[in-house]
Amino acid sequence: MQLDHVGVAVPDLRAAIERWRPLIGPPDSEPELVASNRVRVAFVSLGETHLELVEPADASSPVARFLADRGPGLHHLAFRVPSVDAALAEVRRRGDRVVDEHSRAGARGRRVGFAHPSAFGGVLVEFVEGP
Amino acid sequence: MQLDHVGVAVPDLRAAIERWRPLIGPPDSEPELVASNRVRVAFVSLGETHLELVEPADASSPVARFLADRGPGLHHLAFRVPSVDAALAEVRRRGDRVVDEHSRAGARGRRVGFAHPSAFGGVLVEFVEGP
Repeated sequence: MQLDHVGVAVPDLRAAIERWRPLIGPPDSEPELVASNRVRVAFVSLGETHLELVEPADASSPVARFLADRGPGLHHLAFRVPSVDAALAEVRRRGDRVVDEHSRAGARGRRVGFAHPSAFGGVLVEFVEGP
Repeated sequence: MQLDHVGVAVPDLRAAIERWRPLIGPPDSEPELVASNRVRVAFVSLGETHLELVEPADASSPVARFLADRGPGLHHLAFRVPSVDAALAEVRRRGDRVVDEHSRAGARGRRVGFAHPSAFGGVLVEFVEGP
């Protein structure tokens, strides 16, 4: 199973990029607005995987609520799967909860979907469609 | 920069292994006691990186405190570096805090050391010595 990225919740994307740059280098591309989740994100390569810095785009973003509740820090793990809908269905088949019933448009033009943290011992898991 | 592993705090290592197995498969080896941090850990391969499931070995473990304060879930990111002591010194040179002043014995026979979460925007960062 491939880890596509680790998501980190940050209050200020530009400041977070500068904070991480000495350790892991610059982002792969310009920050991107992900409208479906009301966040702005930037990806930094870590070998085969990535760090995704995630800033709320407005106060109604789920990441704004996360920052208010828990403060900045580790937010989610994203796994690359051939079918996000099949991965979400498998979580539900085991009797566990999902955030997204079906896949939706995510960052980098990919289909994505989230399981509920209760499905993986408190870890918010995202599925990202890709080879 | 290589991501060595993502650490997840779990109250029960055996239960966590079974919880994650359908998604990512079984651990690479038997659970290991890391005396220096009073935790029991198991690693599961994720391509070039790993998921590390971390259970407190006793109530005085830092991970026991983490579980009491925040509940189970994402705990730390570990980066592979040629020298843990040099990586810790670099964090301090930038004026940021470390948990470990010097490297110490960690899991899998590796030298490790932790920066303070304030050094990386609320993310607890571990350095793991290796190629």
